[in-house]
Amino acid sequence: MNKTISLAQGNGGLENNELIKEVFYKSFKNDILAKSEDASIIEKNLAFTSDSFTINPIFFKGGDIGKLSICGTCNDLAMMGAKPKYISSAFMIEEGFSLELLKKIAESMRKELQINGAKIICGDTKILPKGSLDKIFINTSGIGLVAQDGISSNNIKQDDCIIISSSIARHGASIFASRKGIEISSELKSDCTSLWPIVEALIKNKIEIRALRDATRGGISAVLNEWAKQSNINIEVDEEKIPICEQVQGICEMLGFEPYDLANEGTFVLALKQSEVQKALDVLHSFDASKEAVVVARVSKNTKDLSQKVILKSSWGTKRFLDLPSGELLPRIC
Amino acid sequence: MNKTISLAQGNGGLENNELIKEVFYKSFKNDILAKSEDASIIEKNLAFTSDSFTINPIFFKGGDIGKLSICGTCNDLAMMGAKPKYISSAFMIEEGFSLELLKKIAESMRKELQINGAKIICGDTKILPKGSLDKIFINTSGIGLVAQDGISSNNIKQDDCIIISSSIARHGASIFASRKGIEISSELKSDCTSLWPIVEALIKNKIEIRALRDATRGGISAVLNEWAKQSNINIEVDEEKIPICEQVQGICEMLGFEPYDLANEGTFVLALKQSEVQKALDVLHSFDASKEAVVVARVSKNTKDLSQKVILKSSWGTKRFLDLPSGELLPRIC
Repeated sequence: MNKTISLAQGNGGLENNELIKEVFYKSFKNDILAKSEDASIIEKNLAFTSDSFTINPIFFKGGDIGKLSICGTCNDLAMMGAKPKYISSAFMIEEGFSLELLKKIAESMRKELQINGAKIICGDTKILPKGSLDKIFINTSGIGLVAQDGISSNNIKQDDCIIISSSIARHGASIFASRKGIEISSELKSDCTSLWPIVEALIKNKIEIRALRDATRGGISAVLNEWAKQSNINIEVDEEKIPICEQVQGICEMLGFEPYDLANEGTFVLALKQSEVQKALDVLHSFDASKEAVVVARVSKNTKDLSQKVILKSSWGTKRFLDLPSGELLPRIC
Repeated sequence: MNKTISLAQGNGGLENNELIKEVFYKSFKNDILAKSEDASIIEKNLAFTSDSFTINPIFFKGGDIGKLSICGTCNDLAMMGAKPKYISSAFMIEEGFSLELLKKIAESMRKELQINGAKIICGDTKILPKGSLDKIFINTSGIGLVAQDGISSNNIKQDDCIIISSSIARHGASIFASRKGIEISSELKSDCTSLWPIVEALIKNKIEIRALRDATRGGISAVLNEWAKQSNINIEVDEEKIPICEQVQGICEMLGFEPYDLANEGTFVLALKQSEVQKALDVLHSFDASKEAVVVARVSKNTKDLSQKVILKSSWGTKRFLDLPSGELLPRIC
């Protein structure tokens, strides 16, 4: 590793994992941290998670830093099968920031808390001198009550199916476009949304979920690669089944990004056994945010030559590996 | 309120309270938040708190941002009578930050976690482009198990005594001195320390604690004024009993600061009934960090003319009010 921290080390991919392993896991090593996924499970069926939000621009098509800060943390809880319940909010604000915008951000948070049925119950406010930070950062930490346990990236088995809930990379692509001043169609906006209502419906309909993960930093590449490793399986993806909208495709081609690596903020990946697929799709299709949900991949066991790999298969019969993202992706995306 | 956020709104005093009330309480209003003190109590006897640390300089006499980030959050739990147990750590790091310093910070955190018997069980790492933030910010949120309940700033009664655990304002004064390049005696350093071992001993010795608060931003002025208001009492302070070391006195005189307003990071204020005082002092004096603990004030009831006031009495018989701090104090102190 280099002697100084690089942007790539925040990409949600390879270098990010290395940094966490090399520095934080070494100092903070313990049983619970070792099993931590989107959130950690602690005594009495509680899930605990924390996330900081530093997005630029702070207002974007489809949301703002306030909405994002609640969706992000509540979604991390939901992805562990936990109902978001208690949230902390810690604001770091640059001197001179607009009071009106701060109120708007707080109102976005309020609305999103309501959707989740969660409350902010403690917090912190730091004001920093001009130039010490760019506008505003928000940390939210959350405690959720586990409604279905056993959801884990270690659980996926041979022949399981993998569903993607909606068209991918809209958050990353629209943030990038707005940052670069690229004119985009009014249809393209961030997928930023709260996922607990959908997860709650899956649980209420007794769908047996093996693994669940929102595809944030590092996109679906990061999720699928982590799952392949954690569950010690191969994942065979039908590339053309992955829903990608035209505008996202256009932006990615223009900029040389792989849409699979780009961040989502309301799109998730779901693994379950084949017999559960139709029931799950019926539930998912009843929600606006997951009406495009589709099976995109199937799990196969490791072979002598292929182990813990994500394989993209095209309709022409070609195959390539989808690797963990590496290098500098978009910084300040969440 | 002004249309833009000012440094004074982060001072832990008057303007800080106004901002929180005007913006955050309005949007996030709920029963638990309304009762929140250093931490909030949630179901099953858990305490939950969150704090962001943005201190400048990040390494200082008596600690660093890593030690501070664990002490700060664990102390907030301890002040609610809760044993620190599960901690989240969210790092925001500027591109180009030294890996070696990051490892040092993580190691400081590890050591302080051990003192508290707490674990980091989840976290987040964001790397931001150069210039987006100054070096490194850390948010820690924490969950503690309440060992003694009923500790609250609403509980203080007439004739209760108030103890200060050690000499005040050492954190604020030493940070300020190092920031301004003022040469100080090697004896002066931040009081940054973990308070759970002391609180645990008070609880084990069955000392009935009415209220407990570490005097961080806003110093002892902020704590005593909040107590006077919350418990609807007057607090009469023997000014000369307040322990202040010579170097702190010198720095405050030089700069026109009131030591009562300056931040502490390991000094706390304790309210209890008179009959508990000697037992409490015996416990406190057995710890290095509270060996100077002393009774400094007594609680009196409101009169027709005086209500919810903190009154400083000098040995010459003069009296003055100690008000909630206001205006720009030291930013980036914690």
